[in-house]
Amino acid sequence: MTKKSRFLKRPVEPFVVEPGLTTDQVLGRMERISFQGRNLATARRIWHRMLESDSTIFLGLAGALSAGGLRQIIAHLVANRYVDCVVSTGANLYHDLHETRGGRHFLGSPFVDDTSLQKDRIDRVYDTFADEEEFIDNDNWIARFASTLESRPYTSREFLYRLGGYLWEATGRDGILTAAFRAQVPIFCPAIADSSIGMGLSQARHAGSARGHIDVIADIIESTNLVIRRPRTASIVLGGGTSKNFINQACVQAEFYNPSVQGHVYALQIITDVPYYGGASGSSLEEAQSWGKLSADADRVTVHADATIALPILASGLATSAGGRLAARRPPTFDQSDRIMTLEGVPIANDRFEVPE
Amino acid sequence: MTKKSRFLKRPVEPFVVEPGLTTDQVLGRMERISFQGRNLATARRIWHRMLESDSTIFLGLAGALSAGGLRQIIAHLVANRYVDCVVSTGANLYHDLHETRGGRHFLGSPFVDDTSLQKDRIDRVYDTFADEEEFIDNDNWIARFASTLESRPYTSREFLYRLGGYLWEATGRDGILTAAFRAQVPIFCPAIADSSIGMGLSQARHAGSARGHIDVIADIIESTNLVIRRPRTASIVLGGGTSKNFINQACVQAEFYNPSVQGHVYALQIITDVPYYGGASGSSLEEAQSWGKLSADADRVTVHADATIALPILASGLATSAGGRLAARRPPTFDQSDRIMTLEGVPIANDRFEVPE
Amino acid sequence: MTKKSRFLKRPVEPFVVEPGLTTDQVLGRMERISFQGRNLATARRIWHRMLESDSTIFLGLAGALSAGGLRQIIAHLVANRYVDCVVSTGANLYHDLHETRGGRHFLGSPFVDDTSLQKDRIDRVYDTFADEEEFIDNDNWIARFASTLESRPYTSREFLYRLGGYLWEATGRDGILTAAFRAQVPIFCPAIADSSIGMGLSQARHAGSARGHIDVIADIIESTNLVIRRPRTASIVLGGGTSKNFINQACVQAEFYNPSVQGHVYALQIITDVPYYGGASGSSLEEAQSWGKLSADADRVTVHADATIALPILASGLATSAGGRLAARRPPTFDQSDRIMTLEGVPIANDRFEVPE
Amino acid sequence: MTKKSRFLKRPVEPFVVEPGLTTDQVLGRMERISFQGRNLATARRIWHRMLESDSTIFLGLAGALSAGGLRQIIAHLVANRYVDCVVSTGANLYHDLHETRGGRHFLGSPFVDDTSLQKDRIDRVYDTFADEEEFIDNDNWIARFASTLESRPYTSREFLYRLGGYLWEATGRDGILTAAFRAQVPIFCPAIADSSIGMGLSQARHAGSARGHIDVIADIIESTNLVIRRPRTASIVLGGGTSKNFINQACVQAEFYNPSVQGHVYALQIITDVPYYGGASGSSLEEAQSWGKLSADADRVTVHADATIALPILASGLATSAGGRLAARRPPTFDQSDRIMTLEGVPIANDRFEVPE
Repeated sequence: MTKKSRFLKRPVEPFVVEPGLTTDQVLGRMERISFQGRNLATARRIWHRMLESDSTIFLGLAGALSAGGLRQIIAHLVANRYVDCVVSTGANLYHDLHETRGGRHFLGSPFVDDTSLQKDRIDRVYDTFADEEEFIDNDNWIARFASTLESRPYTSREFLYRLGGYLWEATGRDGILTAAFRAQVPIFCPAIADSSIGMGLSQARHAGSARGHIDVIADIIESTNLVIRRPRTASIVLGGGTSKNFINQACVQAEFYNPSVQGHVYALQIITDVPYYGGASGSSLEEAQSWGKLSADADRVTVHADATIALPILASGLATSAGGRLAARRPPTFDQSDRIMTLEGVPIANDRFEVPE
Repeated sequence: MTKKSRFLKRPVEPFVVEPGLTTDQVLGRMERISFQGRNLATARRIWHRMLESDSTIFLGLAGALSAGGLRQIIAHLVANRYVDCVVSTGANLYHDLHETRGGRHFLGSPFVDDTSLQKDRIDRVYDTFADEEEFIDNDNWIARFASTLESRPYTSREFLYRLGGYLWEATGRDGILTAAFRAQVPIFCPAIADSSIGMGLSQARHAGSARGHIDVIADIIESTNLVIRRPRTASIVLGGGTSKNFINQACVQAEFYNPSVQGHVYALQIITDVPYYGGASGSSLEEAQSWGKLSADADRVTVHADATIALPILASGLATSAGGRLAARRPPTFDQSDRIMTLEGVPIANDRFEVPE
Repeated sequence: MTKKSRFLKRPVEPFVVEPGLTTDQVLGRMERISFQGRNLATARRIWHRMLESDSTIFLGLAGALSAGGLRQIIAHLVANRYVDCVVSTGANLYHDLHETRGGRHFLGSPFVDDTSLQKDRIDRVYDTFADEEEFIDNDNWIARFASTLESRPYTSREFLYRLGGYLWEATGRDGILTAAFRAQVPIFCPAIADSSIGMGLSQARHAGSARGHIDVIADIIESTNLVIRRPRTASIVLGGGTSKNFINQACVQAEFYNPSVQGHVYALQIITDVPYYGGASGSSLEEAQSWGKLSADADRVTVHADATIALPILASGLATSAGGRLAARRPPTFDQSDRIMTLEGVPIANDRFEVPE
Repeated sequence: MTKKSRFLKRPVEPFVVEPGLTTDQVLGRMERISFQGRNLATARRIWHRMLESDSTIFLGLAGALSAGGLRQIIAHLVANRYVDCVVSTGANLYHDLHETRGGRHFLGSPFVDDTSLQKDRIDRVYDTFADEEEFIDNDNWIARFASTLESRPYTSREFLYRLGGYLWEATGRDGILTAAFRAQVPIFCPAIADSSIGMGLSQARHAGSARGHIDVIADIIESTNLVIRRPRTASIVLGGGTSKNFINQACVQAEFYNPSVQGHVYALQIITDVPYYGGASGSSLEEAQSWGKLSADADRVTVHADATIALPILASGLATSAGGRLAARRPPTFDQSDRIMTLEGVPIANDRFEVPE
């Protein structure tokens, strides 16, 4: 092999269009083209490998994914154990709850007069509208739920599990929170104070109750112990934000107490932000390696794309191709019924790191 | 209807994943979600309407679409008359010619040492590699072809038609240039001097010939006359650049000579650039309306996405759903055999605008 | 005035270069050019108006501003009361603390082998490096500080005030935390769990202490009461993120309890993200109006730029031109010595919203 | 030096704000901060080195720089020989001509109803407006000028030189075209057909004249010979587009005929596009090295910023600090009076490459 041929091994194969192609077939053909199309195809392949490996798979959610129409895909990923643990912004869980409760988001437009919307009490998220009065109803409902809690701090994880249960009982409808409740998949929300769920909790507090106390520091411990217990981890990130870093931070913190933790061994992110300005949302997976957030040889890909295009393609491709892998998979088994979550029947501490002896 | 309900008509319907979904079905479901997923679905719908209408459909190409693996999709769109006239950067045609001649682009990586590539004479386009020596062979081939031309100016359109014919004869292989040759679809390349095709022409000039003269000003006249003759037009733009503006400019120039020209009545663009810095590539379709490039009521959508994701989805969706529309369509018929192109048998002047009497 | 002249009033005046121009002069000339240059000049003008008005000015921080070299500018803005209340990500405060404690960030490069960095325990933030061992020392220092706290929940605001005091005592050096401590400017950190400060707190918890408890729900109440008490507010956002939304959320929550609250009357954001994907970081200020986060007639501007370019220009321009305005300004006076913060001597509740009677 | 300290040499020095800072001082302080602020400072330093070296400095213009208010800065750079050769889109030269002729661009807004603008015949470029009727007057003026030309092909370079002369005679006013005319600085416009200048030329052609013929292939030869003659070159690119590639292509073509050409030895680009989608506008300078467009050890920097912010800062900084360097500089001397341009008195062929013997 000449020096040159090192670099020139596999040719680009132009994408050939045919009628009736499934998204899985499309992704198969995208593996041999360039740029973000190839990256999306690589994301499918890496997700396949995640499922085949014995990894705990984290899913990070940021951006208006639920309001944007992706919540049933995410619920599907949770229910079918494509993922094992979710880290989300509050907004995605709130908008999920909104729809599970029967509220709606509406097809709107970014080219409207926002002062008219303000007058009509309509909230806009780019091209999507929501009715502020329906939102207020949610806030009251959350405050009501909060008043059923005990007067003690909850991790966001425990709180969201109970919220999911309350929601399932009330509605019997599918969604992210209810699917996670039923599948016993933990959801963390480290920035819960920056969301309408947090606002609902603050209203419960205002109403005189000692309830509505969230112990986000315990969330750090719990999520870290999860990594310490099963140090082979994978990270799937949609949109960056606090979720992305929280998933990475768990590895860094775990390594602090257990140097055998090596960072995520698989990582895929679907983002629209870029690294040039130093923010975490757009940071590269290579940068994450310098921190030990990813292992030095992590299988990884960044897809620069809007999740509302990439995720429907990727998830419907996986629905076609990943069935056998899912069936063969032995995902971690959580039980969140008690205050202390268990993993394979063994409690996960939330007040101290599980330092190996 | 209350004031509020004006805005709140059609709810978002969360995307539901199933195995075996075709891309056409995926696009159908994307119509009821938000953000760029919805826009991509709208692009399919607008393209349907373009095909149903009696419009001349322009396709603009910019960015490394051919090197990136999209040239067979574009050839397919040309051959099946999803489009009627192409405006392209030189690079996309050059990379198309490269592969039609049997050259290859290679799956590479953006994370390589470029000085090593320089040493090995490998050219990189983000994550794609090409062998510089194969490129030099193309340049010579183009120079050779140029030496077969007459000693007179050619429009880029006529030149590319003849180049496509020469290439078809030499290879018998499908590609953008050869498909356009066979379907008599005109291709304009206003910035041909900024490309390896231009470089090949300059080498022919150097070789002592009076050949290789491109009359890009005549291209303006020809493309404008095309609009004057069939003023109902549609614009599909991939990637912005000179192609985007040239397609729009034809409307503006046509209106100058025929005020009944109203701008494109359909427009869709798939771009990654943004409008905030004033450049044409990222400019909005609304801005284009101020110029009269688009009609005031143009059916339009901008998809903010990489074409290597969006186009395979969109084109394979169309392959499934647009068959009947294509069969029913009566596209404009060009004949480029002679120096002066004809449209429905009537010559299109390239030295004067066809001012209606 | 003809219809047309409505739109064509003030001509662009090309920027004329001269030696020795101060940034304030540059901003003055930028007011008559286009695109983001004009927006940056408008940001200066709006900030002037904020200072002249009787507004409480919020400053939101996200992205790697401190690591990037902007922490002394931010400290300067706090110390001189260009702003009245800060909302920050944990990372910006952690990196500020790092440098105040004598740690350093280093001029690096994005073009390095991250696995080498990992081996050498160097953390990369785009083109900036830090020594992981220095970071571990901070974490221990924070854990040590946390062990001096009482066994009760603290708002992030109270916690950061005490942290700033401890840091000032230990170092006597300027920085964001210490400047805020000395100027009694409150800092909120709603996503503190997603940061190394949170990690330090979790280590304190691990060490056996009942300390390190942060009550982020109380932060919502406190920040909302701040708006209820002084409903004329202004928002300055660098980089989006949780800080941007938390500042806006305070208005929405305040309006819930006091309908006379109308949203921020001034708003400027310097961001690099875009609105097309629905995320809050890139959302427009117009969208914020639909939610009531901004008043319907808010004076506002979005600057699409990296803060490491925009803020040095803007702040050094203001340092030249805003002196008189600052001197004349009567900013809100906070006292954070006690558990309950006071504003103009009156306590601000953190367990109930201050509903007007 | 430990392995680690290789990476940790120069600390970030937080930017310290003071009243009265000049932009040159600001750039000096930006050299020790991170991200794009540092890159902008590096751009100044590299430009200094360009001036100190014996390089031919190319300036590429794309995006709406002239309409946006930067044309006097560009004219200043040309007149004072910060640069030696300009490559531009047609739009930038057209908008320059527009203002030199007394036309105006107006401070507008992106938040207007574009159909109203269309009705009023106002053209919008993001937040900038222009009067369509003034534009039509330019087109006629250009057509009139074209009718004074000989009936032979002109390179865009010769055409623009004569246009600049005609404009200078008519107006005596400063601008890009007139400054370049007076300083004998060549301007190339490879995509002239994609612009209103091209449209003006096509109107001259329509008017019955054999004039208005542009020989863009000869432009390739002329620009390449410029590099062959003085192979030490530097590239400054604002905004990407055809200008960026044309400047790079000249090096590639020159190397083809003279292997001692090594690519630009200095390169700085101020762009807003990104590399992830394969387009040339956003491509990295490292990628350019693989092609030999830049030398393997080129001194280079990419600034991710809008030129309407970056260029006023950079140019006014240079105005303060570069005076001595300019005075000491011996720029290449062009004479364009005749059809064949001379460099240091020696004609530059435009019909054959100047192959060294």
